[in-house]
Formats: sequence, C-alpha cells, structure tokens
Amino acid sequence: MEREREDSATKYFHVLCSYMRKFIFRILSVGTIPNHIAFIMDGNRRYAKKQSLRADDAAGHKAGFLALTSMLKYCYELGIKCVSIYPFSIDNFKRRPNEVQYVMHPTLKKIQGLLKEKSIVQKYGARVYFRGNMTLLTEPIRVAAEKAMVATTNNTGMMMPFICVAYTSTDEIVHAIQESCNNKWVGIQEANGSKAWNQEIRDEEYQMEEKAIIKLRDIEKHMYMDVAPDPDILIQTSGKHRLSNFQLWHTTYCLLCSPAVLWPEIGLRHSVRAVLDFQQHRSYLDKKKRQA
Amino acid sequence: MEREREDSATKYFHVLCSYMRKFIFRILSVGTIPNHIAFIMDGNRRYAKKQSLRADDAAGHKAGFLALTSMLKYCYELGIKCVSIYPFSIDNFKRRPNEVQYVMHPTLKKIQGLLKEKSIVQKYGARVYFRGNMTLLTEPIRVAAEKAMVATTNNTGMMMPFICVAYTSTDEIVHAIQESCNNKWVGIQEANGSKAWNQEIRDEEYQMEEKAIIKLRDIEKHMYMDVAPDPDILIQTSGKHRLSNFQLWHTTYCLLCSPAVLWPEIGLRHSVRAVLDFQQHRSYLDKKKRQA
Repeated sequence: MEREREDSATKYFHVLCSYMRKFIFRILSVGTIPNHIAFIMDGNRRYAKKQSLRADDAAGHKAGFLALTSMLKYCYELGIKCVSIYPFSIDNFKRRPNEVQYVMHPTLKKIQGLLKEKSIVQKYGARVYFRGNMTLLTEPIRVAAEKAMVATTNNTGMMMPFICVAYTSTDEIVHAIQESCNNKWVGIQEANGSKAWNQEIRDEEYQMEEKAIIKLRDIEKHMYMDVAPDPDILIQTSGKHRLSNFQLWHTTYCLLCSPAVLWPEIGLRHSVRAVLDFQQHRSYLDKKKRQA
Repeated sequence: MEREREDSATKYFHVLCSYMRKFIFRILSVGTIPNHIAFIMDGNRRYAKKQSLRADDAAGHKAGFLALTSMLKYCYELGIKCVSIYPFSIDNFKRRPNEVQYVMHPTLKKIQGLLKEKSIVQKYGARVYFRGNMTLLTEPIRVAAEKAMVATTNNTGMMMPFICVAYTSTDEIVHAIQESCNNKWVGIQEANGSKAWNQEIRDEEYQMEEKAIIKLRDIEKHMYMDVAPDPDILIQTSGKHRLSNFQLWHTTYCLLCSPAVLWPEIGLRHSVRAVLDFQQHRSYLDKKKRQA
C-alpha cells in the first residue's frame, strides 16, 4: 500500500515536471529557437570517479547516455531541427585497449537499440546520421551504424541527430581535401582522355589550376557535416573552455556554452540557459554571419 | 610647484606598480609559463560607443592599441615567447569603406612606427611576423609590413609577435590546401618531365596519389602560422564566447579565456588570471595533446 502511494506520488511529480517544462519551452519559443545544437559530451569518466562508480564497466558512459536521452527529448520538445553529438573522438581510440573495448561494446548495443520500437529515434521519427572516419570503427559497429542510417532514411521527424564517432575536425578537413583532390584529379583525367597529352596542355592546365586548384566550395561539399546547418550553439560540459577538435570549421558564428558540470549532470536548466543566451546574442551573431 | 609634486607622485606610483607587477610575475613563474598566447582584440568600437568617443576617428582602435602595448609588455616581462594578435580579420574588410579607411590609416602609421627607436619592438628586440592574406591589404600597408618583417629578421628577443591582419582560419586552411596542391602538381610535372607521358604512367600515379594526394603534414607546412608553436591560451575579450575564426586549426588543445571586458579595458588582472587558469589546467591539456 505504502509502495503504491509512493509510485503514484512519483508519477504525479513527473507529470507536473513535464507540464512545467512544456510551459517553459512555450515561453522560450516566443524568441528564436536555434536550428542546430552541438554537444561535446565531456566528463563521463570523471563522473564515474566522482560518484565512486566502477570505471571498468563504463558506468560513467551509461550515465552519460541517460543524460543524452533527456537532452534529445528537450531538443525535440523545443523544436530544434538538428542535434549533433560527439561521444567518441579519434583521439579516444588511443586510450587503453580495454577501456576502448568497454565503450565500444555498449556503443554497439545502443546503435542496435536505435531501431527498436520504443527507442527515442522511432518515437520522434528522427533520421539518424553517423559521421566521422568510419573505417576506424569495428566491423559490427560500422554495419550497425549503416543499418541505422538506411532504416531511418525516410523518417521526416523534426530532429536529425548527427552522431560523430571516430571524428575530429582536423580529420574532417583533411578528408574533405583528399576527396576534393581525388575528384579534381579524376576530372582532369577525364577531360584529357581523348586528347594527346603533351607539354603544352600540361602547361595550360597548370596555369588554369594554379589559381584555384581546390576552392572553398569544393572543401565544404566534402565535409562530413555537409548535410547539417552550421551549429547555432556549441555546448561543452565540464566548463573546460577547450574546443575538443569538434566542428571547428562550422562553429565560427556559433555561441559557445561551457556549463561547469560533467556531462551526466547536464539537465534542463543548462539547455534553457543556452537557448536564452543564444536569443540574447542572436542579432550580434547574425550580423557577424552576414559580414562573412 | 603643485604640478611638480603631482608629477612626482604619479612617477612614484608607476614605479610602485611596476615593482608589484614584477613581484606577481615572479610568483607566477614558479609554475609553467605558456609559450604562446593568442589575443582576439574584440570590442574596440563598442568601447568607443560606451565612452561616447567619436567613432569616425577610430578612437576605440586607438584605445585598443594602448591596451595592446600594455599586454605585450606583460607578456615580455612574463617570458612568453610568442604572442599572436588578431586586430583585423578578412570579414572586417566588408564594413563601410570609410570605416575600413579609418582603421587602415592608423594601422599604416603603427606599422611604420614599429621600426622607430623607441617602439616596443625595438625595446624588446622582437622579431615581427605579419600573417594573413596580404594581397587584401593596400600597397603601402603591405610594403610597410614586409619592411618591418625584413628589418626585424635578425632580432633574437624572446617575444615574437604574430600580427594576423586580413586573416581568417578558413582562409588560412584553404590557402594551405591550394599551396599543397600547387606543390604536388609541380612535383608530378617535374617527376614526369623526362618520361613519355602515357596512360600507364597516369594510371600508376593515380593509384599512388589516390591514397594520399595531400597529407596532413602538407597542409600544416603551408599554414600561415607554421613558424609559431600552437597557442596555449586564447584570450577573446567581450566575453562573447565565440571563436571569431582565429587559429581554429591550432587551438584544439588550448585554454579558452573570455574575460567579460572590451579589448581596451583588458589589463594586468586578466593576463594574471589567464596564466593561473592555464597552470591549473595544464596537466589536463597536456594529456589531451599526448593522446592526439
């Protein structure tokens, strides 16, 4: 009886919280809602240590996943069209193999879980994108990620989560350069397929190419994040005031927020604060964007 | 008599401040001193408005130059080897022509002033580097900048100020890509200068190049900032928490500081606070750098 009463109280409390949240979001929606929020999920391991959780079972990462689920829910309810998250950078692969393994195993489960009926992706009809140097991932994770992308291709839900695994900005830029060069190289080959290749043509092409072998638009076309709009807000937890090599190219006119909490501790108040800060600075950021 | 007494008091006050400052720096030097501090000088125009100064004579920029002189002095006294400043980005050229002109004119004077005997550059025996898309500058400024670089080539003073004019990070990266492509193209031409150019060679080269036409080290070699070590601290005034497209490639493992003051208001306390923050977070940043 006592237990039932407690359960009911908890249920009513959650319903009340949900109404309060929706009320806050309704007020926020009077201002401009950002199109894209990028999250650097920093501090999972420190959270595990702080809470004296076992480090070897990636307890911090599990807590981090719960925090992510809540943040995705808030973003969806706020009407944010695009969310990008950075759970695992290329640098993280250089940690101890057993630690990498302990993160990779639940990652595979979570990706497979995306396609289950009750998952947040299915609930919100979201289209999932995995971005990064996918060749660094293990075969099962790569296959699961591709399967999730294909399965959600026709989803037209408001939110598009971009999951940047095995990603760094510098790797993204180098990848875009290499893709642009490959394309350019193939283009040159095709253009000269039917011609006699002689010094004159080479000189002429060199003159032409010297001015703009690779252009800005070539690079941007081949970025991993080409489909997404540039982030409006970049939230990095742990208050570290560090960039973490995430979407450097795309965050020039973006608001940086560094709440002084570890990722699993992030909550409603941080997302509300970030959106309010964005609304406060929007006209300034827009002006800078127009000047660019 | 009254005036003389006031002058003496001011003089003693300055001497006292100087001793106090050196004492503070001596204490700071017990910890690690950063190699490179990068400054984004944001807020000159807002300072002019705030102080109701005349905007058309670039009064804010003049106040900003005084603040810069003080910051360079503090950096020199602290033993910081390299300082980079970002007074004028490519985007700033898109402002109203008269405003660009009002900034360009004193800029030319300041650059010419660098070579005068009493200038800060001569006092500290500093070697000056100008970096950015110099073709965007007017002829007199470009000539003055080149003259300043040549004249200070043999200076071996501790501090190297990198003055990034007509600079943005994305422009730097695209420039590095184009330089790398040009070099690669010339290399391919030279390698085949004595050979008969036939389909077989082209195929073979394509195979070879496809894997790595342009490598990470090619890009880094052609960056404007290739001579400088990566910044340890990036200080952006105005507390805007925005990246401003400055040294994005180089600031991955760098501490971001955003003091909530306009550039002309920056002072000793902000530089001390930034160095203390750097010393506090150094082991974490170093660890991240090692993992990269």
